[in-house]
Amino acid sequence: MSADRLEAVLDTLRAFVAERDWAQFHDPKNLAMAVVSEAGELAAEYRWISNPEADAWSRDPENRSRVEHEAADVAIALLLFLDRIGVDFFKAVSAKIEINRRSYPVAASRGRPQRPERTRSSGPSASSA
Amino acid sequence: MSADRLEAVLDTLRAFVAERDWAQFHDPKNLAMAVVSEAGELAAEYRWISNPEADAWSRDPENRSRVEHEAADVAIALLLFLDRIGVDFFKAVSAKIEINRRSYPVAASRGRPQRPERTRSSGPSASSA
Amino acid sequence: MSADRLEAVLDTLRAFVAERDWAQFHDPKNLAMAVVSEAGELAAEYRWISNPEADAWSRDPENRSRVEHEAADVAIALLLFLDRIGVDFFKAVSAKIEINRRSYPVAASRGRPQRPERTRSSGPSASSA
Amino acid sequence: MSADRLEAVLDTLRAFVAERDWAQFHDPKNLAMAVVSEAGELAAEYRWISNPEADAWSRDPENRSRVEHEAADVAIALLLFLDRIGVDFFKAVSAKIEINRRSYPVAASRGRPQRPERTRSSGPSASSA
Repeated sequence: MSADRLEAVLDTLRAFVAERDWAQFHDPKNLAMAVVSEAGELAAEYRWISNPEADAWSRDPENRSRVEHEAADVAIALLLFLDRIGVDFFKAVSAKIEINRRSYPVAASRGRPQRPERTRSSGPSASSA
Repeated sequence: MSADRLEAVLDTLRAFVAERDWAQFHDPKNLAMAVVSEAGELAAEYRWISNPEADAWSRDPENRSRVEHEAADVAIALLLFLDRIGVDFFKAVSAKIEINRRSYPVAASRGRPQRPERTRSSGPSASSA
Repeated sequence: MSADRLEAVLDTLRAFVAERDWAQFHDPKNLAMAVVSEAGELAAEYRWISNPEADAWSRDPENRSRVEHEAADVAIALLLFLDRIGVDFFKAVSAKIEINRRSYPVAASRGRPQRPERTRSSGPSASSA
Repeated sequence: MSADRLEAVLDTLRAFVAERDWAQFHDPKNLAMAVVSEAGELAAEYRWISNPEADAWSRDPENRSRVEHEAADVAIALLLFLDRIGVDFFKAVSAKIEINRRSYPVAASRGRPQRPERTRSSGPSASSA
């Protein structure tokens, strides 16, 4: 029998939420807000740490423990979000990797990082309030 | 005599940073990271508060005080960021409002909020690492 | 006569919002969400830029223009948020600087950046849902 | 044979990064910045959507597809972050759930959501720049 670690952790999270009657607060909007606020806490840990020192800094046991907890908070909020909207974590990740393969072909991407090349369309479209 | 409140607060902030020898940590990358982590803290205050209760919740003196402080933290990081890259806060805001006027003409926008209509260009462009 | 640039830009923003009937979407929760999502876009511009290159990178006219716009987006969302909850931008910033003076006395802070030294209280307090 | 989906997706991500010579940009600081900027994009999708409509809005196929991609972007950045600092995703999540159990005992938490009850210690500690 194979233990699926994703299903196991989802079961634990669902029970945790149910015991505390928290599902009422866990609509997708609130969970998206939770993801970004926890992500902000992870970013806060590194904001004055320079790039050249970041790997070594993260190896210090105290720092590592803190960022591990912050990253786990992001993960938990994200797992709850995907569960709420009925999406499998690994399927979503795998699908996006394939999209990224096409967006960032090796030849053009080698040594050049992803850049946020976004353009905002002018005005709201058919999508209403 | 007119007091320019922006210049006054910028002078205070510059002195605050200089006294503590903090400019070394305040390159634009770190300041952008500070802006988003402080913004995450502001978002954290509202993450379980529903839209219908948000205005009333914000009027409670204790809540109001906390979100005021979090918003001020975002403002301070943002003022430091713009100062570092040599951009005037109000000029930047006014210029962007004019861009937004064209992006969101009244007729098409009435009753419809801004939507994040973004498309990512495929692959990195001429801009290298 | 002194021109107060804050009042001028707030008047412009209020008119912009009113013309488009957008106040219905601008409760404090949504505006806090707008602040952090715009802050995320600013952070995105710097995510692969290393600290040593950040100042020079920001001086490139194209980059500077983009981060100026992203920073202005954060500023606009923040101004709308503070206006919604009835707080003056400069009063909030000045008050927080004074709090920071006490939190980061010069002698102890010199050369050492602010650190997110936060502890989470165990469990929800009297503050209910 | 049991396929461990986490190991499989990590192998795919590591190869993706190696092919493009991107590890140079993936120190923990940059990856933390990537996590929060992608999280900001997810939050952007919901910023004008009210809580009561959030579940239904997320069921619309177009919206669902977009938020699925944004959530996957957060997940990918987070997986890369944890891999860079040598932490197992599921171990980190399980450990944090246990910490949360103690922080949010059922009796005190029932019907009351987690609140960001944080206090900032005054001044930097022994942890230097």
